[in-house]
Formats: sequence, structure tokens, C-alpha cells
Amino acid sequence: MPKSQRNTSERLLHEGLRLLSQQGLHGVTLGRLAEHVGMSKSGVFAHFRSIEDVQIALLDHTAQCVAPLVVEPALRAPEGLPRIDALMRAWFGWTARAGLPGGCPVAAAMFELDDVEGPVRDKVLELELGWRALLQQQVEAAVRLGHLHSELDVEQFIFELCGIYLIHHVSLRFVREPSSDARAHRALEGLIARSRPPNS
Amino acid sequence: MPKSQRNTSERLLHEGLRLLSQQGLHGVTLGRLAEHVGMSKSGVFAHFRSIEDVQIALLDHTAQCVAPLVVEPALRAPEGLPRIDALMRAWFGWTARAGLPGGCPVAAAMFELDDVEGPVRDKVLELELGWRALLQQQVEAAVRLGHLHSELDVEQFIFELCGIYLIHHVSLRFVREPSSDARAHRALEGLIARSRPPNS
Repeated sequence: MPKSQRNTSERLLHEGLRLLSQQGLHGVTLGRLAEHVGMSKSGVFAHFRSIEDVQIALLDHTAQCVAPLVVEPALRAPEGLPRIDALMRAWFGWTARAGLPGGCPVAAAMFELDDVEGPVRDKVLELELGWRALLQQQVEAAVRLGHLHSELDVEQFIFELCGIYLIHHVSLRFVREPSSDARAHRALEGLIARSRPPNS
Repeated sequence: MPKSQRNTSERLLHEGLRLLSQQGLHGVTLGRLAEHVGMSKSGVFAHFRSIEDVQIALLDHTAQCVAPLVVEPALRAPEGLPRIDALMRAWFGWTARAGLPGGCPVAAAMFELDDVEGPVRDKVLELELGWRALLQQQVEAAVRLGHLHSELDVEQFIFELCGIYLIHHVSLRFVREPSSDARAHRALEGLIARSRPPNS
């Protein structure tokens, strides 16, 4: 791909992700994206075949932003609880640290597309299940290392963890409650404390 | 208001809420609503001045559906923990029991409108804060009755409760995980158990 075309693709992904984080998937239209990047709709169409293609590319781009900002730094922390803690603290509110003007595209899409079938929903589900698989690996490692209870219900732990992420998102971004970070951290600490081995 | 006009209003609210639960606020357009009710756009405009008017009316209608289905039966349970338990069990997954084809309009709207200002956001926030105030009354009553710990951080309890509601919504409706109800109930039981007075 020639450099100028690659740069345009990068600009489309960059501006598109900003739009997605603020407006949700339905807000990313070809017209709006073209306007944000300062090009014609047909120019956008030279890079993507359909609006679904754009949305899927933006969801993949979301995952690519999360990797260096959230996952990779956390994976450098020691395995077990320190890594789970690092992962959670990097995850909560990650979009602001990524310089995005809005919220988490995956969290929003899970409410936007619950009753919509198709490849965009499939992509969101793939990202969500991939994320949960990563969490599961880390929680299982913490169990293996004796940081968490050997009888821990790992799926229940992850269910409750993801609940804390969602309510933090709503409290911080929708209700705009100043105590949101503190409440999410307290909930996380509680979840970890009650998942520790007895007498630890 | 003449009876035929009232019936049309009721039909607009009924069909509009079905649409809202499946498609979210952005999916409720005048054209789509007119099509669902089998009338012209100008016919819809005779009942509402703007699409924002429609959305606000549908959000109020959502609250009116929640009252007899969730709130009123729960308020007949004895005050304190039995009432909280009844309220939660009626709340989780209420849209299916209301005969709606989709998810909770308020939960979805809190992700859809986090970065959007205006009267529709204000209405969603009003409903959410009203709901939390009701929860707070019930939790405070349970504390007063000695069902919950006298030192309980009531706001933290409600934060975590709302997190369970959101992750249940995602697991059931987006991930379509069969264990969602059981996981939500287990999380709720855990939250209540750790909020009980010592030695209870």
C-alpha cells in the first residue's frame, strides 16, 4: 500500500475511533466519518467496502489500542494477584488514558447490539470473549500460585469483575459521580479479599 | 382528549417502547415509529412535537411499565431484606416479563448518551437517580431493621448492586450465556451475605 494511502487509513481509524467512543456504532456513518477526516464519502469508500467494514475495522483498532495501554504493561507485573491488580487498574477508565473523548466502544456495543445479528455483533462478541479468556488465564494463574482460593469459582469471579467495570463506566461517564474510581477500587478490593485462600 | 386519539397515543407508546427496547434511542425515528404503528409521519407529529419528545415520552412510559411489574409487587414484601430480595429478583431481566422483545432502555441509554447533552440525557439521569433513591430507601430500612450491618456503606452497596444488574444484562442478552440468572443471583446473595450484621 503506498504511504499516502496508509496514512489515510490510519487517519480514518484514528478519527473513526474517536467518533465511535463518543457516538457508538450507530453514530459512525460514512458521511460523518468523511466529514471528520475532511474527505469525500467516495474517498472513504475507497478504503472500506461498507459501513459494517468500517465498524469492524474500528473494533479491531480498539483492541489494538487496548493492547499496549492496558494488556502489555499489566503482563509485565508478576503473575497472580499483582498482575490482576495491574490489569484492572489499567482497564477501568482506559479510554481517557488513550486520549479518546468518549467511553469504551465494546461496553457500549454490548448494549447497542444485543438484539442485532450480523458480523459487527460477532466481532464485538469475539473481542469480549477474548478479553474474558485473558482474565480467566490470569485468575487461574493466581489460583495456581495460591494467591486466590483453590476452590474459587473462576467464572463467577470474572462475572463480578466485569460488573464492576460496567458500573464504573456508568457512574463515571453517565452519572459523572466523582467517587466512581474510589468505589470501583473498593469493589475490586472486596472481590479479591473474599476470593483469597482461608487464613491468608 | 377524544378516545380515538388516546388509543393512538397508547399504540404509539406501546410500539415505541418495543422499538426502543430492541434498537436503543437512536433506533426510534419518526419514520420507523410511523411504520410500526401503520400511520404517516405527520400523524405521529400530531402527537409529539419532536423526536426528543417521543424519546422522553417513551422513557417515562418505561418507568410506568416498571412500576406495576417490579416496584409495586416488591413493596408488598415485608420491609428490609425480604423487600430488597423481591425488588432485585423482579428487576433482573424485567423486560422479558414485560413482554418486550429487547433489553432495558435505561441501561442501554446510559451507554448511548454518556457523551450527549440535552433533555433526553437529563430524563435518563432522572430515571436512574430516582431508581437509586428507591434502592437507597430500601437498603437504609434494612439497616434500620438490623437486617444489614449498621456501619454498611449504603452507596457502595448500591454501586455493586447496579453492577450486578448491568453484567446480568450483558451476559443474558449480549453473550447469551445460560448461567446468567444463576450467576446474578449468586452475586446478589454474596453481596447481601457480606453486608449482614456480624454473627447474624
